[in-house]
Amino acid sequence: MNADNLFENLPADLSNEVFEDIIRAEGVRIERIVSLGHTSPESGWYDQEEHEWVIVLKGKAILEFEDGRVYHLSAGDYVNVPAHARHKVAWTDPDNVTIWLAVFYR
Amino acid sequence: MNADNLFENLPADLSNEVFEDIIRAEGVRIERIVSLGHTSPESGWYDQEEHEWVIVLKGKAILEFEDGRVYHLSAGDYVNVPAHARHKVAWTDPDNVTIWLAVFYR
Repeated sequence: MNADNLFENLPADLSNEVFEDIIRAEGVRIERIVSLGHTSPESGWYDQEEHEWVIVLKGKAILEFEDGRVYHLSAGDYVNVPAHARHKVAWTDPDNVTIWLAVFYR
Repeated sequence: MNADNLFENLPADLSNEVFEDIIRAEGVRIERIVSLGHTSPESGWYDQEEHEWVIVLKGKAILEFEDGRVYHLSAGDYVNVPAHARHKVAWTDPDNVTIWLAVFYR
């Protein structure tokens, strides 16, 4: 049997950052995020109801928190973002896709 | 700031397969599994109360289900294992570590 692969079937249109659910269950959501030079949110900070554990699996990104922490992330680097910890993606590599895996939980 | 990295700080002793919690919350558990030629469980099948979404991020493995499905997994391949879907790790690469990320959820 062929398994699905996180690094394959990338979106053809990356004019916007692409968020895709892999698993959506009562207490958890697993999401693939594909970025190509995008920053997010467009303005301000993410302020989320859920905790988010996020790992970069390909590419490079900079994750900033309102409290001043700045993480330069590359493949394998992960950060846990507690609910309401205000944060943003300040930079992603504009030349190669960055693939994230995010697990949202309560 | 330096983030933790899933591919670093591997266990020195891999005489047994190593399971490490990364996140443990009410409805979800995120675990790193490092295998080196191990198969598991030692006999029979896993029959779990929780659902498990699992991805191989480095190395190679074979995942079998009692229903006859056999998955040859390499980096990026993922499978969702519903609760009580009996399964086992039939093989992992004996020459290089295999690193899995597993998300257990209800």
